[in-house]
Amino acid sequence: MSTNLSINPDRLWQTLMESAEIGRTPGGGVRRLALSDEDKAVRDLFARWVKEGGYALAVDGVGNMFARREGTDRSLPPVLVGSHLDSQAKGGRFDGPLGVIAGLEVLRTLDDRGIKTKRAIELVNWTNEEGARFPPPMLASLAFSGGADLAWVEDRRDREGVRFADELARIGYRGEAPVGGRKLDSYFELHIEQGPILDQVGLPLGIVTGGFAMQGMRIAVRGETAHSGPTPMMRRHNALVGASYMAIAVDDIGWRYAPEDGKTTVARLDLRPNLPGILSDEADLWIDFRHPVKERLPDMVAEVEAAVAESARRSRTKIEIAERWGFGGLVFDSDLIALIRETAQRLGVPSMDIQTQAGHDAYHLTKVCPSAMIFTPCKDGISHNEAEDIDLASTVPGVNVLLHAVLARATT
Amino acid sequence: MSTNLSINPDRLWQTLMESAEIGRTPGGGVRRLALSDEDKAVRDLFARWVKEGGYALAVDGVGNMFARREGTDRSLPPVLVGSHLDSQAKGGRFDGPLGVIAGLEVLRTLDDRGIKTKRAIELVNWTNEEGARFPPPMLASLAFSGGADLAWVEDRRDREGVRFADELARIGYRGEAPVGGRKLDSYFELHIEQGPILDQVGLPLGIVTGGFAMQGMRIAVRGETAHSGPTPMMRRHNALVGASYMAIAVDDIGWRYAPEDGKTTVARLDLRPNLPGILSDEADLWIDFRHPVKERLPDMVAEVEAAVAESARRSRTKIEIAERWGFGGLVFDSDLIALIRETAQRLGVPSMDIQTQAGHDAYHLTKVCPSAMIFTPCKDGISHNEAEDIDLASTVPGVNVLLHAVLARATT
Repeated sequence: MSTNLSINPDRLWQTLMESAEIGRTPGGGVRRLALSDEDKAVRDLFARWVKEGGYALAVDGVGNMFARREGTDRSLPPVLVGSHLDSQAKGGRFDGPLGVIAGLEVLRTLDDRGIKTKRAIELVNWTNEEGARFPPPMLASLAFSGGADLAWVEDRRDREGVRFADELARIGYRGEAPVGGRKLDSYFELHIEQGPILDQVGLPLGIVTGGFAMQGMRIAVRGETAHSGPTPMMRRHNALVGASYMAIAVDDIGWRYAPEDGKTTVARLDLRPNLPGILSDEADLWIDFRHPVKERLPDMVAEVEAAVAESARRSRTKIEIAERWGFGGLVFDSDLIALIRETAQRLGVPSMDIQTQAGHDAYHLTKVCPSAMIFTPCKDGISHNEAEDIDLASTVPGVNVLLHAVLARATT
Repeated sequence: MSTNLSINPDRLWQTLMESAEIGRTPGGGVRRLALSDEDKAVRDLFARWVKEGGYALAVDGVGNMFARREGTDRSLPPVLVGSHLDSQAKGGRFDGPLGVIAGLEVLRTLDDRGIKTKRAIELVNWTNEEGARFPPPMLASLAFSGGADLAWVEDRRDREGVRFADELARIGYRGEAPVGGRKLDSYFELHIEQGPILDQVGLPLGIVTGGFAMQGMRIAVRGETAHSGPTPMMRRHNALVGASYMAIAVDDIGWRYAPEDGKTTVARLDLRPNLPGILSDEADLWIDFRHPVKERLPDMVAEVEAAVAESARRSRTKIEIAERWGFGGLVFDSDLIALIRETAQRLGVPSMDIQTQAGHDAYHLTKVCPSAMIFTPCKDGISHNEAEDIDLASTVPGVNVLLHAVLARATT
């Protein structure tokens, strides 16, 4: 295929800006929590694009949306491309939407040139990638790839106790299509890096070879309520003190592994009753830790486990690891990586190999079909933040690589 | 007055149990947050008692309720007795209600015997003593004693942003009476100890000589949101880590002062956005510390201030003491203490001197009139907890001392 074939940068940008209007925040970001009214609005917009393009739309039982540009041989499994349109509570405009709209731009460019492909190309908007409202993240691609029971997914609840399935039905996106179970040729996901590396070294393309190994945990601390005044120190069992010892211990572990690019996060802490004048008896601390080398993760786990006993002793509370989950520690498909690398070379796009440190739906897709990711730079590495930003000129080369790689796969 | 004069223990208990039905929790405690529907219900009950007793009811502009049993000389300032009927979110049945209902029992006993007093006796139910919904605690007695501007009190907000004055009007207890500004002869407050001392030494009466000095603070930690995955440790400014360093430091200070009966509490921690997968950029930590010797409090303050700088450095966040408040460190009126001590001796009630460690409305009343407190035991010192409990037989002696002390004051 000619290297002259290129996406339309203006249309890409305008479509991005159109999506950024939905759930726009005063701080310049977006708030489109999964299955909220804003999520419904951006899904309706996606459906409008699909209709305007003349593609077929299918929505599955967990709300994943698939737009299909038919191929000349309908019997062949399609090439899938996409990302997600939901956001963090105060998220950026590009984390997710760039991958969906880059995929849309691929379809539109092929339409412009009247290019037919042997395989169908499908564009996907995954439900609830962020997990900001319905933990865990990447819930619907997990279900799609067979990693979670449908009933379990449907029963996930937000902080107010609202059920995933009820909200999905409320916004009108509980679809008829089966969740997963069908054959795909391949999956491509373009995403902003969400880290500072490409921006710092000044390269427009990261070829994602694999992902950091990630382990998440919910640490449950249990103490006793008591009046903050008369209760002597010796009789206190304050869950907030227990959680604080754990938080510091987990942060310290992150610093110890930082030289080898490991990291830890204490992200969320829920306290009950969490009032002045009274000791909290319950604390739940959500932590995660990540390492580029999967084999090092058990060492980090062991340090966290050791910190549990020590934190419980010092705070005189009961502490346990109540839940564990994880992802990553995988490598993407070597054929697809080679295809992306060759495509970048052919188009003259300078690139580097990189590992993803965030979670992505592409992780789960590796269980279903050959999968790969393309990273483009984001300014100063800022993400999960309203200030998240990109530069169009350093983004277009990555989208063109996506176009040519998808096209190559769809024509063979 | 004859030592035969005694309150009616059964009626006292039945009235307590009647109040405990309102906002009763499955765990055996009560939930009557200030200005909630449950607070309205218990106020309505109080008003019914007042009406049944034939007393005059006045409600002031911050919702404080005063029942007046008239004296023979209306020109004399009244003796005031009472406490509060609001509770913690999961509070006990006696913290507050015992003092109100003991005062009611004093009035009822005088009615039973047809005893007239020279001075009127007023029974008060203070609004929002706990401050569990509208910080700070003891808000309405602070306003009554001239320590807070009325407009400021009216503008206090709960966690959902609802205004104090709006909720007060909603439940129908924004009264016409002026807030404070009138002359009182004296104030008596009976309260459970909320600590373990009386229960451990087996005495029914604590003569409260004064209060621990208390200093409260809101510590504001400011960091930056970032993705918990790709963000390197070196670029993190996690507000939860800063708050955890502060929490541990404050707890450590409490242990250092524990041998001299000092103590510290980290009570409430609010985080934003407080979600998995994203670093929190804002944390507000509410702390307090208490010491029996007022002059030692500045030493504790200095240690907290030192901890601020060190915690900020270690967590790479900005930390400041955003608000400060305090109470206590005072002594109650020596004449009233002497009167209570003589009364206890006359009635043969064994007692000990004690200091209060919790905050009480009586603190603020010391600025307005001679004030004193009587403590009765609570089981195992448990309070601000649904399991809070008392023994009627060890409570009645204290209520009788209250009866005789109030009567003595009202007849002179």
